[in-house]
Amino acid sequence: MTLVSAIEKQRQLKNATKTKVAVAKGDGIGPEIMEATVRILEAAGAKVDFEYVDLGEKMYLSGHSAGIDNHAWETIRKNKVIFKAPITTPQGKGYKSLNVTLRKSLGLFANVRPVEAYTPYVQSHFPNMDVVIIRENEEDLYAGIEHRQTQDVYQCLKLITRPGTERIVRYAFEYAKAYGRKKVTCMVKDNIMKITDGLFHKVFDEISKEYPEIASETQIIDIGSARLAANPENYDVIVTANLYGDIISDIAAEIGGSVGMCGSANIGKDVAMFEAIHGSAPDIAGKGIANPSGLINAAVAMLTHIEQNEVADKIKNAWLATLEEGYHTADIYQEGSSLKKVGTKEFAERVIKNLGSIPSKLKESRLQDGNGVIQIPEYVRQVEQKQLVGVDVFLDWGGNNPNELGDDLSDLSTSKLGLKMITNRGVKVYPEGLSETYCTDHWRCRFVGKDGSELNYSKIDFEEIVYLLSKLNNSGYEVIKTENLYEFSNKRGFSLGQGE
Amino acid sequence: MTLVSAIEKQRQLKNATKTKVAVAKGDGIGPEIMEATVRILEAAGAKVDFEYVDLGEKMYLSGHSAGIDNHAWETIRKNKVIFKAPITTPQGKGYKSLNVTLRKSLGLFANVRPVEAYTPYVQSHFPNMDVVIIRENEEDLYAGIEHRQTQDVYQCLKLITRPGTERIVRYAFEYAKAYGRKKVTCMVKDNIMKITDGLFHKVFDEISKEYPEIASETQIIDIGSARLAANPENYDVIVTANLYGDIISDIAAEIGGSVGMCGSANIGKDVAMFEAIHGSAPDIAGKGIANPSGLINAAVAMLTHIEQNEVADKIKNAWLATLEEGYHTADIYQEGSSLKKVGTKEFAERVIKNLGSIPSKLKESRLQDGNGVIQIPEYVRQVEQKQLVGVDVFLDWGGNNPNELGDDLSDLSTSKLGLKMITNRGVKVYPEGLSETYCTDHWRCRFVGKDGSELNYSKIDFEEIVYLLSKLNNSGYEVIKTENLYEFSNKRGFSLGQGE
Repeated sequence: MTLVSAIEKQRQLKNATKTKVAVAKGDGIGPEIMEATVRILEAAGAKVDFEYVDLGEKMYLSGHSAGIDNHAWETIRKNKVIFKAPITTPQGKGYKSLNVTLRKSLGLFANVRPVEAYTPYVQSHFPNMDVVIIRENEEDLYAGIEHRQTQDVYQCLKLITRPGTERIVRYAFEYAKAYGRKKVTCMVKDNIMKITDGLFHKVFDEISKEYPEIASETQIIDIGSARLAANPENYDVIVTANLYGDIISDIAAEIGGSVGMCGSANIGKDVAMFEAIHGSAPDIAGKGIANPSGLINAAVAMLTHIEQNEVADKIKNAWLATLEEGYHTADIYQEGSSLKKVGTKEFAERVIKNLGSIPSKLKESRLQDGNGVIQIPEYVRQVEQKQLVGVDVFLDWGGNNPNELGDDLSDLSTSKLGLKMITNRGVKVYPEGLSETYCTDHWRCRFVGKDGSELNYSKIDFEEIVYLLSKLNNSGYEVIKTENLYEFSNKRGFSLGQGE
Repeated sequence: MTLVSAIEKQRQLKNATKTKVAVAKGDGIGPEIMEATVRILEAAGAKVDFEYVDLGEKMYLSGHSAGIDNHAWETIRKNKVIFKAPITTPQGKGYKSLNVTLRKSLGLFANVRPVEAYTPYVQSHFPNMDVVIIRENEEDLYAGIEHRQTQDVYQCLKLITRPGTERIVRYAFEYAKAYGRKKVTCMVKDNIMKITDGLFHKVFDEISKEYPEIASETQIIDIGSARLAANPENYDVIVTANLYGDIISDIAAEIGGSVGMCGSANIGKDVAMFEAIHGSAPDIAGKGIANPSGLINAAVAMLTHIEQNEVADKIKNAWLATLEEGYHTADIYQEGSSLKKVGTKEFAERVIKNLGSIPSKLKESRLQDGNGVIQIPEYVRQVEQKQLVGVDVFLDWGGNNPNELGDDLSDLSTSKLGLKMITNRGVKVYPEGLSETYCTDHWRCRFVGKDGSELNYSKIDFEEIVYLLSKLNNSGYEVIKTENLYEFSNKRGFSLGQGE
């Protein structure tokens, strides 16, 4: 087992020298809050060297459609850590999201978002909320593979992979271990998506066994989201797939009252990126009134990533103490309960003055209580015996009588492949459909391997499928897509039709 | 334009006679709460005739794997309305979810879940919450079409259709109109899924124009869920796709404190089903202490569906008055604030006694203020010119150098089809990939129509694809699936790769 290379490298370098970090000052309020945060990092004694890069609006407008130039790419890939203030994507066509580009290109597989409530200093219904959401960041429906196939029907592929799932689940348990967390909750919808979300659940169960000291549980995403929204205090670390994580990490930030206070990390095998979750707020840019807290919390996450947990605790506790004192920026200032409305700089000064203090009411940060460094072994593919046993052929067909289609396709069966069933939007319509089932122009026709005249998912060769496609095409049918049917280790690798 | 046939029929029959309803008493607490609810319906003068059917545990255990026999099917299909108490699905393999079977087989396309807060009688942080979530109920990822394709990769198809989307969006606006609602909010993730969720958003914009008297807005599902969880008072009617709706309807019920109080409707073109959202609670069955409120609210929804809005209001207001009086079942009884802890029967008696009363603090039900009957025209397919311009061929390939694969596949291009790019989990890896991109064994290879040597998505014939597949197979490549690339009215019907 080899370890994540960048972290290993950083560990070796740790005591010798400062960690180099690429820093992007961003747009809008970015430069102000970055300046304030960097001052705090320096005052706290963080062993960090800053190398500034230009990202965002200026780069977009000078002709880089992704908002980044080669120099910035090189600096980021060399330093392996990027600390990034919010950027502005100019209005207009052709500008791609820089965050999506960085995440996908650099393989930032884990999005980590800690959300805490800071009542009574920031309002929330949930004073004891302290949850970390770890979201798979690369695959699922967000792979962005979409096809319009007929007049009626549009499709997006949801891809869940074993390496991607192993990595994110292991990251969640390693995170819990490293930062002294007690429980990891997995959220999936495997009562419906038994194969894709079923894999996520299965991998979670496998890997949780390696961490007996950490409690684990799995919840269905609908109930899980609802319980998170109603009782977030019951959660510690949550790990989930991309789309679900996108939804619940926004729920957590919003109900924690923390959209302006949260930092987030995007972690890759080689590179990691740290940022605030809020935007560049151009309407208040340059006024010196922005709240730097989101970026300060991102800095805390960055320090833990580069194994400077003590400095991370020092900054976090000084920041908590500042909130308690009532030195509040305008966005969280409350007449009566706050002591003084301060600007960005004065807030940072107060945090610096409080370095060494710990909060008296809010929960003290004890990141150093964790146990070591996050280690993710390389994925090792386990090869199962794989056998082709049929094919789902999807047709664009404008008729409305499934029996007409089914009978005709049965006649077109080859000597090796026969029609088993037809579904429309997943519901079986042939043989023996119900008249209430509404049919679109998108027909999934399942042909399976024959054993004599028996349709029993017998082994076939791919050339049989090619022959079938040719025969269907020559008979005037419009094939729009195919999905092969496989068994893995003699177990069915595909779902049955509703009613099959 | 023809109208929904069942509703039309019911309207004609309305003044002539009672509406026949199939009633399932269910399992666990089902029979008790159904008996209580039926007594209230009768006392309130609902024009309903009950025809009892057996569904659920008894049927499962007598050998019907879906929990329903032919007699029950016939009764439901004949009466067109089913009123259903919670059922128990026995533990063990081979028992299919009755709800999924009913929903899919009967084409119950809309799930409707009203959620109100009843503070201070039921605790919630959101006293003014009063939202109706209308969820598409048949398609999306819940079509259940899944395939394992390689050692690493598992896939589920998300299908969004124009007829399905038109129908659910129109249902939402018609619902708002019929029950005096002011605003419909659409939730999608079309910043990522531009083709599938893009269609949902587009159809919503088209149809909202037909209802200028109702406000409309669209939100991204992550932010939308978060805002719903934090400020549900800002929502009125929400319409969304199946998975998103599953999540947010549970969030709404949970934060409203109403899981035990909510009813829900499943509406089809021909048949509609009404039920409580909670389960059969076998632990308290037979004790006479269960809260019938969920089923009472389902009855209210049923009465509006069969156009007995006045009776619906009468029951709802009597029920609200009973909550206010403090006659509470054990699940919502609070020492100090409740007046009396009552059982199922006594609660129903009190509701009957209050028929004619209106609540003094809680919001009075005024369903009769709406405007007419929900009418959904038949879908009319608009046929656009469709042209085949390429194919995505997916390979199971165990190598790890995309350039090796890409160069070889370029050599295998035919005279009409050439390799344009390769992606892995949606990220372009050939030509010109980045070394940081992690690659699974699942390669999407895009071949597009050539014009001479130019790869420019020129028109091709399907037989070119058949020829390419044969050539790839003969060269030793394992094709696992295909997705044709189409233009519709000369516009691209597929997404580009990240980085294409």
